[in-house]
Amino acid sequence: MTDPGGETHDLEDLRQAIDHIDKQIVSLLAERQAVVKQVTEIKKSRHLPVYHPAREEDLISSRRTQGAAAGLSPDFIEELYRVILRQSRVEQTRRMAQKAVFPGGVILIVGGRGAMGRFFERRFIEAGYQVRILDKEDWPNAGQLCEGIHAALISVPIDQTNAIISRIAPCLPRNAILADITSIKSSPLAAMMDAYEGPVVGLHPMFGPNTSSLDKQIVVATPGRQDAQYQWLLDQLAAWGSVVVTADANEHDQIMDLVQALRHFASFSFGRFLYRKQIDLERTLDFTSPIYRLELGMVGRLFAQDPSLYCEIIFASRQRRDVLRQYVRSLQDNLDMLEENNKEAFMAEFSKIADWFGSFSEQAMRESTYIIDKLIERF
Amino acid sequence: MTDPGGETHDLEDLRQAIDHIDKQIVSLLAERQAVVKQVTEIKKSRHLPVYHPAREEDLISSRRTQGAAAGLSPDFIEELYRVILRQSRVEQTRRMAQKAVFPGGVILIVGGRGAMGRFFERRFIEAGYQVRILDKEDWPNAGQLCEGIHAALISVPIDQTNAIISRIAPCLPRNAILADITSIKSSPLAAMMDAYEGPVVGLHPMFGPNTSSLDKQIVVATPGRQDAQYQWLLDQLAAWGSVVVTADANEHDQIMDLVQALRHFASFSFGRFLYRKQIDLERTLDFTSPIYRLELGMVGRLFAQDPSLYCEIIFASRQRRDVLRQYVRSLQDNLDMLEENNKEAFMAEFSKIADWFGSFSEQAMRESTYIIDKLIERF
Repeated sequence: MTDPGGETHDLEDLRQAIDHIDKQIVSLLAERQAVVKQVTEIKKSRHLPVYHPAREEDLISSRRTQGAAAGLSPDFIEELYRVILRQSRVEQTRRMAQKAVFPGGVILIVGGRGAMGRFFERRFIEAGYQVRILDKEDWPNAGQLCEGIHAALISVPIDQTNAIISRIAPCLPRNAILADITSIKSSPLAAMMDAYEGPVVGLHPMFGPNTSSLDKQIVVATPGRQDAQYQWLLDQLAAWGSVVVTADANEHDQIMDLVQALRHFASFSFGRFLYRKQIDLERTLDFTSPIYRLELGMVGRLFAQDPSLYCEIIFASRQRRDVLRQYVRSLQDNLDMLEENNKEAFMAEFSKIADWFGSFSEQAMRESTYIIDKLIERF
Repeated sequence: MTDPGGETHDLEDLRQAIDHIDKQIVSLLAERQAVVKQVTEIKKSRHLPVYHPAREEDLISSRRTQGAAAGLSPDFIEELYRVILRQSRVEQTRRMAQKAVFPGGVILIVGGRGAMGRFFERRFIEAGYQVRILDKEDWPNAGQLCEGIHAALISVPIDQTNAIISRIAPCLPRNAILADITSIKSSPLAAMMDAYEGPVVGLHPMFGPNTSSLDKQIVVATPGRQDAQYQWLLDQLAAWGSVVVTADANEHDQIMDLVQALRHFASFSFGRFLYRKQIDLERTLDFTSPIYRLELGMVGRLFAQDPSLYCEIIFASRQRRDVLRQYVRSLQDNLDMLEENNKEAFMAEFSKIADWFGSFSEQAMRESTYIIDKLIERF
């Protein structure tokens, strides 16, 4: 390996050796997928769940041990197997989803031509349900469209939800489920309970229409009436891989004021300030640490999406707008500290907040560090 | 497979088949690592760079093609190989770093007992440099510590940087590099140019002391004097895997007002508001979509770290504090919109900002969607 020509030759040989190993790895992955397919068939016929946490953890811990014994980093092996297992779950979920929890079910999606409506239309059709759409122009046929349905899913803008509920309720067959997927819950749930006497449930899918898989995505369910009657709808969401979290509608709305509205509003305000300063985004990115790239990405991401969606979320209720105004005012408390160059005040405040965040901040540190590594790896 | 007992048996068999495949995959990964080690030895002896983008892209595209032909998702294969290639780079960088770009170099780290000082101390020692530390208590020996050094790295809090520069400069041997790693650059660079006549460069490593690898991490270099003399120091950073970005010190500072200070300040203010509202963090997380979990994590992350670090960044200069105050005031412009429930104003503003973000927001959408998938996969 001392002769330079020989070294180049060696390098080429070694790269071919790597390619040869990689081909075998990909072949084994294909073999693995074929075996997983057989597992899925069995799970499907026996109604077993896709996600089997204990089996996954066992598998990962065996591979970590084997990797470490072979001189590989166990964290690296775990990371790799998290990717492999997720792909395996997504594949299994896709196959399992083809079997409906309520075979023969007929679903009416009111507002079915909107982005979320179309999202659920595809999912229900894939699972073998019969899906009907009722959008603006279809009201003359509402009676016919409602005939024999087992569930009506209201997927319309927040400010129309209550009116649409009142309009559809009288057309529904007795025992059909009435459910909405609005991002606020108290007011639509009250409207459904008022307008209709059958099974009622409010749903809030915590994801957008661009989500590629429902795997581990959260759906909040706010119970209305006749839980047993609408249970199959929640089971169907779970069969798609979602995690269904049950909550009181008021509690949901209060939390969403912060979880959704405040975060989106803060991102909007940040983007607005950058725009007003006319900063040079491109040049900024040259200087960018992965964490800033990610943070700026969270802001940029907002502006790639439908403004009316964010407008709806931010302006959803007076209570919500009040929280946002409180937030703006709370920022003004920082002005004096900045004006007076008061570092002591900053440090004292920081420590109090850090105590309050407690163990969450450590966990956030671990999670975001992991994510930053992923960003570096990919981009 | 129709007899239930047989099915359980089958499931167990199939799981064993999967384990058998997985063992082969891990063995192949170990083989792969051994070959990569040989590649590293050659690269090291021939001074070839670790990161070879064209080779990586070729490799990924071959594996995608092979995967697709075998019925695997090409995106899944690419994801897997990004993890494998990153691990490969990290391993290579670790091995290459053991060879110094400037063999026999002696480095003095002023403030070497701080977190960043210790971070660089470890890196330089691993690479085979001789490292000396000058911290508060070592000033009586400053003359001796400076004897025969090739570079002095100033790693002290911002508000002490200029004073320390004036104090160390007269002790430096002619031709030693004087460099600082403060997060602002104009003022320390001017101080170095003033106090010293030899080679000068200002550095800003865009990462914290907890970074596990320098792979793809950015270091901003603001040129001072005698570029050719300090080039080996930049080359050493690149050999560790860093990306060195050259910039004018003023440009750097203006961008950092936004990139660092404004982002941290916005996160601080957000955390402060949550604390004042005393929201129930735990319950909030039950409802959490991955994107919110990530956004809250970015805030929580701040409070897991050293307050004095953020205090330094936020209060670094009057100019910076003025930018932050402008930001607070700009938020007040949103108050009327919220008070008057003026959705039209929001939509109009949103569209203007979205236009301005342009293609960045699409890219941010793609990147953050990828990252969210990673979060779901892992937590």
